[in-house]
Amino acid sequence: MAGNTFGTLFRVTTFGESHGKALGCVVDGCPPGLSLSEEYIQAELDKRRPGKSHLETQRKEKDRVQILSGVFEGLTTGHPIALIIFNEDVQSKAYEPLKDVFRPGHADFTYFMKYGIRDYRGGGRASGRETVARVAAGAIAKRILEEYKIQVIGYTLSLGGIKAQNIDLEEIEKNPLFCPDKSVVPEMVELIEKTRKEGDSIGGVVEVVAKGVPAGLGEPVFDKLSADLAKALCSIPAVKGFEIGAGFKAAELKGSQNNDPISSSGFLKNDAGGMLGGISTGQDLVVRIAVKPIPSIAKPQKTVNTKGEEVEIIVGGRHDVSAIPRIVPVATAMVRIVLADHLLRQLAYLAFRARIPFPDFFKKD
Amino acid sequence: MAGNTFGTLFRVTTFGESHGKALGCVVDGCPPGLSLSEEYIQAELDKRRPGKSHLETQRKEKDRVQILSGVFEGLTTGHPIALIIFNEDVQSKAYEPLKDVFRPGHADFTYFMKYGIRDYRGGGRASGRETVARVAAGAIAKRILEEYKIQVIGYTLSLGGIKAQNIDLEEIEKNPLFCPDKSVVPEMVELIEKTRKEGDSIGGVVEVVAKGVPAGLGEPVFDKLSADLAKALCSIPAVKGFEIGAGFKAAELKGSQNNDPISSSGFLKNDAGGMLGGISTGQDLVVRIAVKPIPSIAKPQKTVNTKGEEVEIIVGGRHDVSAIPRIVPVATAMVRIVLADHLLRQLAYLAFRARIPFPDFFKKD
Amino acid sequence: MAGNTFGTLFRVTTFGESHGKALGCVVDGCPPGLSLSEEYIQAELDKRRPGKSHLETQRKEKDRVQILSGVFEGLTTGHPIALIIFNEDVQSKAYEPLKDVFRPGHADFTYFMKYGIRDYRGGGRASGRETVARVAAGAIAKRILEEYKIQVIGYTLSLGGIKAQNIDLEEIEKNPLFCPDKSVVPEMVELIEKTRKEGDSIGGVVEVVAKGVPAGLGEPVFDKLSADLAKALCSIPAVKGFEIGAGFKAAELKGSQNNDPISSSGFLKNDAGGMLGGISTGQDLVVRIAVKPIPSIAKPQKTVNTKGEEVEIIVGGRHDVSAIPRIVPVATAMVRIVLADHLLRQLAYLAFRARIPFPDFFKKD
Amino acid sequence: MAGNTFGTLFRVTTFGESHGKALGCVVDGCPPGLSLSEEYIQAELDKRRPGKSHLETQRKEKDRVQILSGVFEGLTTGHPIALIIFNEDVQSKAYEPLKDVFRPGHADFTYFMKYGIRDYRGGGRASGRETVARVAAGAIAKRILEEYKIQVIGYTLSLGGIKAQNIDLEEIEKNPLFCPDKSVVPEMVELIEKTRKEGDSIGGVVEVVAKGVPAGLGEPVFDKLSADLAKALCSIPAVKGFEIGAGFKAAELKGSQNNDPISSSGFLKNDAGGMLGGISTGQDLVVRIAVKPIPSIAKPQKTVNTKGEEVEIIVGGRHDVSAIPRIVPVATAMVRIVLADHLLRQLAYLAFRARIPFPDFFKKD
Repeated sequence: MAGNTFGTLFRVTTFGESHGKALGCVVDGCPPGLSLSEEYIQAELDKRRPGKSHLETQRKEKDRVQILSGVFEGLTTGHPIALIIFNEDVQSKAYEPLKDVFRPGHADFTYFMKYGIRDYRGGGRASGRETVARVAAGAIAKRILEEYKIQVIGYTLSLGGIKAQNIDLEEIEKNPLFCPDKSVVPEMVELIEKTRKEGDSIGGVVEVVAKGVPAGLGEPVFDKLSADLAKALCSIPAVKGFEIGAGFKAAELKGSQNNDPISSSGFLKNDAGGMLGGISTGQDLVVRIAVKPIPSIAKPQKTVNTKGEEVEIIVGGRHDVSAIPRIVPVATAMVRIVLADHLLRQLAYLAFRARIPFPDFFKKD
Repeated sequence: MAGNTFGTLFRVTTFGESHGKALGCVVDGCPPGLSLSEEYIQAELDKRRPGKSHLETQRKEKDRVQILSGVFEGLTTGHPIALIIFNEDVQSKAYEPLKDVFRPGHADFTYFMKYGIRDYRGGGRASGRETVARVAAGAIAKRILEEYKIQVIGYTLSLGGIKAQNIDLEEIEKNPLFCPDKSVVPEMVELIEKTRKEGDSIGGVVEVVAKGVPAGLGEPVFDKLSADLAKALCSIPAVKGFEIGAGFKAAELKGSQNNDPISSSGFLKNDAGGMLGGISTGQDLVVRIAVKPIPSIAKPQKTVNTKGEEVEIIVGGRHDVSAIPRIVPVATAMVRIVLADHLLRQLAYLAFRARIPFPDFFKKD
Repeated sequence: MAGNTFGTLFRVTTFGESHGKALGCVVDGCPPGLSLSEEYIQAELDKRRPGKSHLETQRKEKDRVQILSGVFEGLTTGHPIALIIFNEDVQSKAYEPLKDVFRPGHADFTYFMKYGIRDYRGGGRASGRETVARVAAGAIAKRILEEYKIQVIGYTLSLGGIKAQNIDLEEIEKNPLFCPDKSVVPEMVELIEKTRKEGDSIGGVVEVVAKGVPAGLGEPVFDKLSADLAKALCSIPAVKGFEIGAGFKAAELKGSQNNDPISSSGFLKNDAGGMLGGISTGQDLVVRIAVKPIPSIAKPQKTVNTKGEEVEIIVGGRHDVSAIPRIVPVATAMVRIVLADHLLRQLAYLAFRARIPFPDFFKKD
Repeated sequence: MAGNTFGTLFRVTTFGESHGKALGCVVDGCPPGLSLSEEYIQAELDKRRPGKSHLETQRKEKDRVQILSGVFEGLTTGHPIALIIFNEDVQSKAYEPLKDVFRPGHADFTYFMKYGIRDYRGGGRASGRETVARVAAGAIAKRILEEYKIQVIGYTLSLGGIKAQNIDLEEIEKNPLFCPDKSVVPEMVELIEKTRKEGDSIGGVVEVVAKGVPAGLGEPVFDKLSADLAKALCSIPAVKGFEIGAGFKAAELKGSQNNDPISSSGFLKNDAGGMLGGISTGQDLVVRIAVKPIPSIAKPQKTVNTKGEEVEIIVGGRHDVSAIPRIVPVATAMVRIVLADHLLRQLAYLAFRARIPFPDFFKKD
């Protein structure tokens, strides 16, 4: 219980179900005095909005965010910022046939075992739709990082086995798949359409890079920057793997190959992915996640109902063929949330080291 | 700051540096009434003890654990259990030549940037030696899990590219590499010896399996069981990747391949690695970590000193060639710590659902 | 930063300003399967609603609560319950003259020093209005406690120096002052009206009693039940003191007077206020808070503006003469929140001690 | 469970029982680069050491503290500082007759109900001896506060009804009762001796003042500075009440009396006790606690044993007549711990507001 809050100084609490009244979050710990508007947050939400291209679920959600608190005259006040997105296009009816059936690959069974009851409407809180609140919170983290010129960029590294070969960050926003290699986009689109026709689904790999991260973020031992990124990213639905820098490939290298030599102008390569001992080196942060194919498929599958009886199901409803590309802004948001938190944590240290003075107000005699 | 505590109801805080006076931990939240002895904890520590075979560092540490609190007449009292291991074979002299040099692949540079000062003695808190406290804490978690017949087993899945092919859990404790496939052990041993002669190092992959985990552990959204395992395991020094079940392979499967069908007697396969929606399914939990080659190598490397001047170093000292096998009991311990915490968290729910009564003491009139 | 969350297993996060769009909370950790309706929560809110009698501020707020998540078909799901109350009768204009002035006794100055900016509209987050979200959250805690027959009752023990002499819990809901002694109510009402005419304000003492609390709640050392109650109650605006049982009077007693003797049918008195060593004894929990006179008064006061210039102000607007009686349901709510959290924490222990089994789903062969 | 940790950025975890092997703490979050020695910490411990005057328990403990980690070459490293104090003069035998009896006013009964087992040796973790670890941790907090010239001073305000009239901070360290009014010390000493002869005990009131606290410490709503002080102080054994500034007296004042007017050179009085809206004003922080008479008395008392049978007991052993004066350094330590935590929390904000730069290491081309 009580597992819906993340962070120490920059702290995000989310709420809401796929087919409930609303989704949202409370972001606690945003420093005061930052400009923040609904439009700014909306721009991030629009990147993961459903139904924005023919490649995605046809659920039509405007996903209009409202700021309920924590902003006054266009500036953050230092108080909790509550954000809300009302659900509109809720078609719970589609889920009634599934009411008593555990969809394979979904959390239906585990939620039932955990809670003893079932919110059958589209996965409830286990739905990918939960992530809309993360993206909203991530927009506030982005606003904080901007002040320190830290830039976080996510993209599709591979989709259903098709890999981006040349990473060109300029390309990412130019295609609906957030793919940094335009040469493979047509092939990816084709695979999505083919897979949809087959009633199947595909997964992929998303990479997130953070530029301008200062050296020194992350706490040793448990709250390593790398460990908090692992938790943040593995808490996204459908994620089954996580890598930093060379990742699993590092397991097959020798130390002499894997170590990044250092020169007087910086590290000579970045197999470490921007972290050593769990603390940022000042190089680009590079992390990756493995995204499983989404479990809702239109093919017949063997399963059981809540009575334990074997049944066959075909999952209808309006589903994406892949969590990619919509998971890209979610992963980006989570990395931003972790960085904003660790930035503030390290600032406390730096401020103490510099013994920065507290402001005075009254005249001293 | 303050990043050395892990867990919610079962909470571990560690302390101590590689070349300091002692290492240890405080384990808070262990239920009362469990038998616990120093011998029981020692048995776990002995698995990661240095110098126990010729394949490992020749630092000789008996690593004798003492229980300082929380146990009375052989039983846990419900109070914090402090465990301490005094350092004995400390040879800090060996590190003096490295005093002002950042060893590539080590946390020397990042700690210096974070803290502004340097404990050059063998990595201080960034040393693998820090993990001795985790193993001690993990022994207490093991004691809790035993009561629910949950068994956690870690092993070497691959070493320097050599992979275990047939997983036989009975073999693990029979060889010094914790390898479940005895047929590849000679090859692995040979590789270690060859690599040591070359003054180089190697990495590998460790897998941890948990058997008997009940369905329903883990909290949705941020404190997913999967996410907490990711954090716990990625907080271990040298870990660069994490996988659940099919892991990165899932990114290349179709939904119809990846989904685990369900029959009336259970799941028909386990590509999910025992978790759906971040909550345990009741199947075996299966997670894996990528371990990088340890960065201390006897080959010349380019680096800089604390003044930013370029220098070449050869790292001496008494080092392992690989974090494997000694990281195996560490990973096992971290999985146990996560499971003990989530077991207790879920028990709070189950107890409420059952409305279990509180004990009465006084006679009612 | 990030100080708007309270609790461990039952966790409350609040948001919203006095003159913002909305106030609300996210309650995380409520067990599943409990009936919960907006009407149930509304009944608690109505107790602190402004403008319900002529003794209170004439701000007219219906304070209609909406459940946004966490409840499905009338039952809690185990997921975060978001509650929202939109502000309606917002007259920020009245505060414009005070825009640059620090009202004595208010948080205007301290917020300015903390955040460097000012939300002058009615105190923003420092307003008593913030507590509406606590009462809403407390209603959910009440629902949990009902299942264990724990009853929490708050009342006015004294107002502006007039003390309730005979405590009759039946009287509390029968008068608008939540006073358990009807004989002093007319005198209290008279004092309120006299004080309003004088443009002044008064404080008082509120007592909260919890009945049916099982023995064993609370954690030793820092998270004592008494310590968590102290924090919860002292976090309410205007609270300047806190007592348990005999409280400050205990400081003048001898041990032989203060100790509560025990017989085979229970404790023979309750000077301890239901807690020993910070853990509940099974007797009634008895705590008290000192409430200062509300600082908004219509008399001229010396103060300074944001430039540090001395000015005289008369605080207009629609203010209560006393935080009592409206603080009574707030204090009651906070005690319930603490008890719900510690109930769940202790249930985890009890469940483990009983080794209660996890539910099975699949047929064993 | 897991209730032995306190703080957010400056975090203290304690362990150890009255008659166990050792007591101690892990202090996580101390900034690096501060000079810290065992002597410095010892000086604080010596203030609460038992047996240092004939007014106190004759248990002879040298209470020698050892630093186990987190300090290198005399400076803090930023890593957890583990402190340990071995128990020496342990005479558990004295407690054997009490093995099955619940001492009135003690935590014996509540611990038994919570844990189901009993550590009868001198109260175990409920003993006042637990507080030795708090004082050790508080010494580290003191070291941090010194850097910002924040001074925390505790003293005996009243003892067994005898009140200090004239507060002279210079007197405090000059008498064994930490009493700021030397004129009442002989009367207090006489009362202690008389009470000891009677086999009884007495309580009192302790006041703690913090000077030099900058304005702006504390978080609104739950983590108010006042609320965290309330929790910290009410977590000390024997504390039954807590006050800020005017405290319970404020409940009887009018707003026009209680409000502190402000002039261009500061507040004109300090009834608020240095906090408004839970945030520090920059004036002296003033808090008070009510300390109950210690429950161990040599008079016969009615109680029950673990079987529920009525028995009479006379508590032997070596007990203080009052928790005062030894609780004074404990209360002082707890206030320091809270202030160090909130200082660091606010520094994170200030650093962000100032956009203080992160240190660079490498030459920019």
